[in-house]
Amino acid sequence: MTTSTNQVYPVIWHNNSVSLIDQTRLPNEYSFVEIHRSDDMALAIKTMIVRGAPAIGVAAAYGMYLGAREIETSDGETPAGGERREFLDKLEKVAELLRSTRPTAVNLFWAIGRMMKTAYESLGTVEEIKQTLLQTAQAINAEDLQTCQAIGDHGLAALPKTPEKLTILTHCNAGALATAGYGTALGVVRSAWREGRLTRVFADETRPRLQGAKLTAWECVQEGIPVTVITDNMAAHCMQRGLIHAVVVGADRIAANGDTANKIGTYSLAIATIAHNIPFFVAAPLSTIDFALTDGSQIPIEEREPTEIYQIGDTTLTPSGVEYYNPAFDVTPAKLITAIITENGAFAPSDLAKAQTKQVV
Amino acid sequence: MTTSTNQVYPVIWHNNSVSLIDQTRLPNEYSFVEIHRSDDMALAIKTMIVRGAPAIGVAAAYGMYLGAREIETSDGETPAGGERREFLDKLEKVAELLRSTRPTAVNLFWAIGRMMKTAYESLGTVEEIKQTLLQTAQAINAEDLQTCQAIGDHGLAALPKTPEKLTILTHCNAGALATAGYGTALGVVRSAWREGRLTRVFADETRPRLQGAKLTAWECVQEGIPVTVITDNMAAHCMQRGLIHAVVVGADRIAANGDTANKIGTYSLAIATIAHNIPFFVAAPLSTIDFALTDGSQIPIEEREPTEIYQIGDTTLTPSGVEYYNPAFDVTPAKLITAIITENGAFAPSDLAKAQTKQVV
Repeated sequence: MTTSTNQVYPVIWHNNSVSLIDQTRLPNEYSFVEIHRSDDMALAIKTMIVRGAPAIGVAAAYGMYLGAREIETSDGETPAGGERREFLDKLEKVAELLRSTRPTAVNLFWAIGRMMKTAYESLGTVEEIKQTLLQTAQAINAEDLQTCQAIGDHGLAALPKTPEKLTILTHCNAGALATAGYGTALGVVRSAWREGRLTRVFADETRPRLQGAKLTAWECVQEGIPVTVITDNMAAHCMQRGLIHAVVVGADRIAANGDTANKIGTYSLAIATIAHNIPFFVAAPLSTIDFALTDGSQIPIEEREPTEIYQIGDTTLTPSGVEYYNPAFDVTPAKLITAIITENGAFAPSDLAKAQTKQVV
Repeated sequence: MTTSTNQVYPVIWHNNSVSLIDQTRLPNEYSFVEIHRSDDMALAIKTMIVRGAPAIGVAAAYGMYLGAREIETSDGETPAGGERREFLDKLEKVAELLRSTRPTAVNLFWAIGRMMKTAYESLGTVEEIKQTLLQTAQAINAEDLQTCQAIGDHGLAALPKTPEKLTILTHCNAGALATAGYGTALGVVRSAWREGRLTRVFADETRPRLQGAKLTAWECVQEGIPVTVITDNMAAHCMQRGLIHAVVVGADRIAANGDTANKIGTYSLAIATIAHNIPFFVAAPLSTIDFALTDGSQIPIEEREPTEIYQIGDTTLTPSGVEYYNPAFDVTPAKLITAIITENGAFAPSDLAKAQTKQVV
């Protein structure tokens, strides 16, 4: 593991509960929320106290354990195997609640699915299954951290060889805060910074929720990486002026053909990279790839409340009588993507099936 | 002139002073600032109480008259013609002050130039020249209103014939507020609405100063035109989903080859229209065309204070330790523009020279 003095872990298991960095309060306040119950975890995901596809997966895994821990089975009152059946039925309800929080990020469904599979396949008493579930959640957490470090290093290898010193533009926050730690897109940034290949990050502010201005900027400052915040609509102009050498973004769900759902604005960026012949990388763990979907048109796109658009702090931006459209994500067609960087290496979207097999790099 | 109950005039001459709609207070407050002096007019332009290239031109013309009115010449102490010489020298200082306010919009320089030319060419006493300057400022004001109405109607004729009912996306505010009235891009919108060809406007919020969310949305509400406000980075996604039939924007300066400087984010939009085969129109008066510049690389781009990016109302968006880049405009290459709509008709950028001659449409 790369060591750093200011490492950021948005989801931490300790004292029998989950500490979440409250990402709605950054960058002004770096504080934690303690989560003891599965319904509180569902709310934390829905309200974006924890956000970012991989981090949501880790949080949901712990949420499944918290939900399991809450289940009291009628031991002795049910026939043999009945207690286990009752437990699994109640755990399915927990899974249902957690699945209902955010529709787009597939890691959520992947992590919940893995926890349910663990529960179904575990032997022993209900208490033993609960312990196995905690271990599985912790494993998902640890694996995601390792995955991000691998993504960072594979991404570094995939970056353009010239110029030697690069500027990278990123969108939203696919950083340590969006994962178990280290980040996906910002994992690539961190690896490039460590190896002396990065001079500066350009961070799109990422309206409406401003995760770039708030979270990516904060992470870069924590690490001492020079960062320039721009409004989203300046990105193409920066490319036109030669200020950007590569774009690296995360993903919330990737279809089998490489079509990628990510934070709204990603598609616009990808189009601009084509116009300027700049490589466009998607950095995401394999758990983000939904091989069940043949293309991006099948990815559900979450629409969020219009307040995100018209209200910032105490300031109302718009007059009354206006309507809004607030899709949280968009889909970038595979043809605009240079490579998808996973823990198994960087792949052209058309070669995505190969990503499932561990590559020697 | 088209009549409407809620017509908006951002620059009004009355009671021997200029009333400006305070555009920094919209949409929450519809109020006026009274300008009596040329230095106050310069400040109003610089601080964007009045903004939008044609409106800046009109305001600067009145600013020139206010400056002329302030000039006291040493009548009797100078030789014959000396009073007139002294007046013109002092008026050049006024012109210099007003020119220093905003670098990109060429209408500012055009209007000031026309006022200076009027002064140089006027016969009679200094007092008579001052009266001629007021008449010229009023003429610039009246002509801009007529120009906008002509642009609106030429734009309507240039819109796609199918579907019959269109949605138009616009950026920033090229509306009544940005002109003497009626607007350029919103002039096209108004003409299309009047003729029943428009179902809805999509308004980019237009970060950092949010003129779309604040001003364009307000103008549409005033006129009863349905308007959907989106963040800038949603525009390409809306095009991908087939929600947009045409994009119409204004301009701050157009080079002889058709390269167009307009509010930051315009370039990004133009690239996206190409990817979706959607027509991209620039609506602007001839006074916006700078035939002295062969291409857009010669257009100076204003950079504004970073506070515009990181501060909204009382809310600071970013952590400390971050850098910013805040270009107020970008340049859209002519090849991305379907047509430039002027008061003399709609022209392909390559035919822009013909725009100087009145066309029969």
